[in-house]
Order: sequence, then structure tokens, then C-alpha cells
Amino acid sequence: MAVKAGRTIGDALMRQLNLSKAFTLLESGPVVLVTTRDGRKNNIMTISWTMVVDFTPVFAITTGEWNHSFAALRKNRECVIAVPTVDLLDKVVGIGTCTGADTDKFSRFELTPVPAKLVRPPLIKECLANIECKVIDIIEKHSIIVLQAVAAYVDTARKEKRTVHAVGDGTFIVDGRKIDRKKMMTSKLPWGV
Amino acid sequence: MAVKAGRTIGDALMRQLNLSKAFTLLESGPVVLVTTRDGRKNNIMTISWTMVVDFTPVFAITTGEWNHSFAALRKNRECVIAVPTVDLLDKVVGIGTCTGADTDKFSRFELTPVPAKLVRPPLIKECLANIECKVIDIIEKHSIIVLQAVAAYVDTARKEKRTVHAVGDGTFIVDGRKIDRKKMMTSKLPWGV
Repeated sequence: MAVKAGRTIGDALMRQLNLSKAFTLLESGPVVLVTTRDGRKNNIMTISWTMVVDFTPVFAITTGEWNHSFAALRKNRECVIAVPTVDLLDKVVGIGTCTGADTDKFSRFELTPVPAKLVRPPLIKECLANIECKVIDIIEKHSIIVLQAVAAYVDTARKEKRTVHAVGDGTFIVDGRKIDRKKMMTSKLPWGV
Repeated sequence: MAVKAGRTIGDALMRQLNLSKAFTLLESGPVVLVTTRDGRKNNIMTISWTMVVDFTPVFAITTGEWNHSFAALRKNRECVIAVPTVDLLDKVVGIGTCTGADTDKFSRFELTPVPAKLVRPPLIKECLANIECKVIDIIEKHSIIVLQAVAAYVDTARKEKRTVHAVGDGTFIVDGRKIDRKKMMTSKLPWGV
């Protein structure tokens, strides 16, 4: 991956990823953690309903009143999308099955908030990747939030890189083997050859 | 999966899937084929930018003028989302890198169109699953198409069930092992225990 200057945070080396490649962090459809900040309170939600909308990069997520984080997202119009790996699955499920209304999720799930550069919600140190996002549109009718990514990081020192995909029935699919079709795809890649 | 009465089409047994579970066909984020029909002409596009929007089920896909299929989708407001498996990857990539403007993709990629029940675009016999959809909204500003699924089928006789996930850089991730967290997730499943 094209990475730029990074910073070491404990044992995690978060390297800044060129924004033009940040869509590749979400295109495969991994379950993600989304952090928000309301006043001085951080929160995290688990989201599987995400989509790439543009290479620039723009993302969409589906969420609404049923998530405690939605109020902060609507009010402050910022979030961080963090991409967890399979070793974090029980935390991911745990975060998705309790509410920030009565739980400090960073503390309960022993995750480390790391200050972001351009938004107030924190990165999650333990995750493979983090994407700082600004809300650019809320399509209330469909509960779709459109996000512009403004910075992205990958922990290049991390050994476990396999993400997980929620099926929606309580099971999760772990990334299996990778198949390379770069030659066939050359004409479709935004950065060309 | 909860399947209902099906029909045999050649060697494929397409069983109707209860609509309340159809979102589980897309939630994990597989690359999909989307069929459209313009007049008497069928077309197929490869789409990786998809999202579940509601359990009912409602889906979103991102597409626009850059896809030849978009004109038919906007005009006729119907499509079928077909879920291919890893053995079909080269067809999936091939479909995504040529245009329906000058290619009959069913013929070129040796795929079999099967009449749908409630929409005019065809199912694809060779795929693991097919979802008949009606366009319920087009958010032109973001090129997001919102789809209501009206029927869903799964080929239960198929041995290869592993889907693939596009990374966006010309590589694809094949489904790996499955992890069961149904007990932890009970409170979040739309059909309960």
C-alpha cells in the first residue's frame, strides 16, 4: 500500500495512507467500528452496512436513531471508521450488542483512543486501519450517512491483517486467500497501471 | 437458510429464500453481478459498491452514467442482483471490464439468463443467489440507487458457496472460515433467537 510518513503510538505504527487508496480499506466489506465524540465523551458503534461511493474517497454508512452514536454523528458531523481484524471479533460483537448510553466502550473493551488529526472522534489504536471522516450529507429518508474521508492510516507493523465480514445471521466470514487480477483490471483501477 | 418452494432450472435448484433473510446474501459485501433489461436486451454489470439499508430488505448500490446499465436501470427501475462464487471470478472481472454498449455479456461469458418472477431483468442461473429488485429511489447527487428486494433465491444444490470480495486494487479476497457468534448476537438478530 502507498503509505506516507507515520507515527508510532505504543507498539502500533500508524502510517498515513494516500487518500486516493483509502477506499480499498472498505471496498471488500469488512465489519467496522465507528467512533464519535459528543462533548468529552467518546463512543464506538459496530457497523456492517457500509459502501464505497467514490474514489475521492466518499463512503456511505447506514445508521439512525436506533444507534446511540447517531446523535453525536448528526450533531458534530464527524467520525472515525476503524477496521478491526479477526483477533478483535469478540470486542466487535460486544460493542455491537451494548449501548454507549450507559457504557464507556473504550474502557469496557480495553481499546485505546488515539487523537485524530482533522476530526474530534478518536482513532482506535488496536485496529488495522483508521479513516478520519466528515459527514457531508445525511439522507434521512433512508438513514444513509455520506462521509468524506479526510485522512487514513494503516498499522503496517500489525501481523494479523485478516478482516471479518458479518453475514447478518450471527456468523462472520474471515478473509481467506487473495486472488490477483490486477492485469485484467488495469483499465478499471483509478490509478491506472 | 430458510428456503421455500423452489424450481429446478437445468442442474441448478433455485430455492426461494424468505425475504426477511435476503439481506444476509449481501451483508458480507461480496462482489455481485447486476442484470438489467432494456427492451429485449439483457445486460450485466459487476458491482462491488453495495450496502444493506434495511432488513425489509432494502439495498443501496452506487452506479451512474459511467455504467452502460445505468440508463436501463433508471428507465425501467428494475434489476436482479446475482451473487457469484469464486469459480466465476474471471467472468465477474471480464464483465466488469467490457461494456454492454457493444457486448452481449450473457453470450460472451456463457451465462444463462433465467426469467425472473416479478421483474423483467433475468436471474443468472450459474450464480449462488439471485435477488429480484425494484428501484425505489435514485439519489443522483451521490449516484446511490436504493432498491427494494421483492424475491430472492438460493441455489442449494451448489457445492461451491464461497463468494469473493473486491479490494479495489485488482485483488480479490475469497471467503475463508466462518465464525459463529449467534449466541452473543441474539439480541441483534431481526428474527430473535
